[in-house]
Amino acid sequence: MGHISILTEADLRDLVTLDASAVDCVEQAFAALATKPVAMPPILRLDIPEFRGEVDVKTAYVPGFDSFAIKVSPGFFDNPQLGLPSLNGLMILLSARTGLVEALLLDNGYLTDIRTAAAGAVAARHLSRQDACTATIFGAGMQARLQLQALMLVRPIRSARIWARDHARASKLAGDFSLAHGIEVTAVADARQAASGADIIVTTTPAEKPILMAQWLEPGQHLTAMGSDAEHKNEIDPTIFARALYIADRITQTRILGELHHAIKAGTAPADRPYPELGAVIAGSATGRTAADDITFADLTGTGVQDTAIANLALTRAKDAGRGQTIENTLKTGDVA
Amino acid sequence: MGHISILTEADLRDLVTLDASAVDCVEQAFAALATKPVAMPPILRLDIPEFRGEVDVKTAYVPGFDSFAIKVSPGFFDNPQLGLPSLNGLMILLSARTGLVEALLLDNGYLTDIRTAAAGAVAARHLSRQDACTATIFGAGMQARLQLQALMLVRPIRSARIWARDHARASKLAGDFSLAHGIEVTAVADARQAASGADIIVTTTPAEKPILMAQWLEPGQHLTAMGSDAEHKNEIDPTIFARALYIADRITQTRILGELHHAIKAGTAPADRPYPELGAVIAGSATGRTAADDITFADLTGTGVQDTAIANLALTRAKDAGRGQTIENTLKTGDVA
Repeated sequence: MGHISILTEADLRDLVTLDASAVDCVEQAFAALATKPVAMPPILRLDIPEFRGEVDVKTAYVPGFDSFAIKVSPGFFDNPQLGLPSLNGLMILLSARTGLVEALLLDNGYLTDIRTAAAGAVAARHLSRQDACTATIFGAGMQARLQLQALMLVRPIRSARIWARDHARASKLAGDFSLAHGIEVTAVADARQAASGADIIVTTTPAEKPILMAQWLEPGQHLTAMGSDAEHKNEIDPTIFARALYIADRITQTRILGELHHAIKAGTAPADRPYPELGAVIAGSATGRTAADDITFADLTGTGVQDTAIANLALTRAKDAGRGQTIENTLKTGDVA
Repeated sequence: MGHISILTEADLRDLVTLDASAVDCVEQAFAALATKPVAMPPILRLDIPEFRGEVDVKTAYVPGFDSFAIKVSPGFFDNPQLGLPSLNGLMILLSARTGLVEALLLDNGYLTDIRTAAAGAVAARHLSRQDACTATIFGAGMQARLQLQALMLVRPIRSARIWARDHARASKLAGDFSLAHGIEVTAVADARQAASGADIIVTTTPAEKPILMAQWLEPGQHLTAMGSDAEHKNEIDPTIFARALYIADRITQTRILGELHHAIKAGTAPADRPYPELGAVIAGSATGRTAADDITFADLTGTGVQDTAIANLALTRAKDAGRGQTIENTLKTGDVA
């Protein structure tokens, strides 16, 4: 009793990588969202405008996972001036049966990177054509790289294109990725041209105005937009709702934070339409792609169930590997001096 | 960079006790609530009915404190059957400037006990008569003991009475407290008799129906009710609003969780009346007691500013004493394998 595992970012980078297990555990969590009494309260948000700081706290209890995660994600946007990363944070893993703290995952946001990419793989596995072999990524940051890696885990990707506002960064990522993963990756300066002919498109940018137009999309394509995790963010032209089968990660959240939010505002999607969720498609209770020339569109805003899934995986791996430090913490005696 | 202090419950019990510094720092936090742009979002709440579990997450940024706390408070009410305490949890202390995690306070709820009692002392210091020397405590649990200790820090308490539904527990607490603190403490079986003649009354019970009647109150008394921290809890007869000067810890919270909530429902207090808050009384921008025979009534539901205050005190003391373990946690390099 009272043992708490402490895992550092270095431990977690060794224990958890973007692999089939990561994708599977995130898929299991989405399926639970559709089939089990998952508890996922709205996000707690604290703003510290004085220092351009904000903190999100997310949590979800997912039946079938022994523990649930509470994730604390600070973003402090003056940090780079101090030589520090903007995004940090940790996850706390608590026993779903007793509420006791089991582990502190000091990941500085690493596990969020992994579970976000894993969700992209899950969306592609359930919505893209099985023979999808070409991918286009919008953006050239960490998630651009990870989302492309994620696609390679679930589809026979042979070539990819990168578009980014900063073409030099797109070229750098294309070169690095080719070298690291042995597929042909090219940077394309024109966004429309980048999208054309791709089987799967993933947008990973912090855009606040659409960077992908609806009329660019071609029959058979699958699109995942994962850049929008806040009200003001918007990557996709809202008229897409007339052309594509829309799937939310969590409909109550995409109505507020996702691409759906902007389509509702633009009047191209009804506010009350019960669009299917990814979990229901996985579980078979909702329909995703039904024909090879459907256009599918997954709107990923990030959910607490993904955090709970990846945190459970991390703790299981740490226990198996005997990794991490243990803190002995006596439990309250009921007496105060 | 990347040093995180870990303090166990044993460390924290040694470093932080219910003393003048604890009362002062909680008082400072309440004053900030009235005078500074404090950010205190609504509580995040997760329920796990399957295991009779619930988790509250509270936070507050208080200008003037270097760090802000995020407190995770699980309550799992089947735990006693497993030989475990129902209430546990921890506080995370983050830099208000960078959002970096500075310390993990594995207190299992101990710091909450202390900051809750400290708020009772603050209320008594600003609302009770300066010569208050007799106290009555309703309840015989941990907070009953701590609230009486807290009163002794701010008023010349010479004798006290304890009332509890379980008279044997009241007698036990009375005997123990007398012995430990050298004042006369007696258990009184009749609640009205217990309240009669007291200068200060503090209710500390989980009652769901009033245990203290408004007509029992006498001119000059100060009452603090701190038992209600959830919608269904109610210690005080709602007609008290016709007799007493009411002060909230946080009005937006007492309207939902506090005694005020029940008075609004009963029609004895208007829902929109801007009752003063404790912080405003401390800061001098609102009026508390103005005459020796006023009856004052503080409604304490517990606020995130108290957590931020006590967590800062704990970390300062730990640094001064060189106490606790340090985890080295590298910061994200921006590269993922």
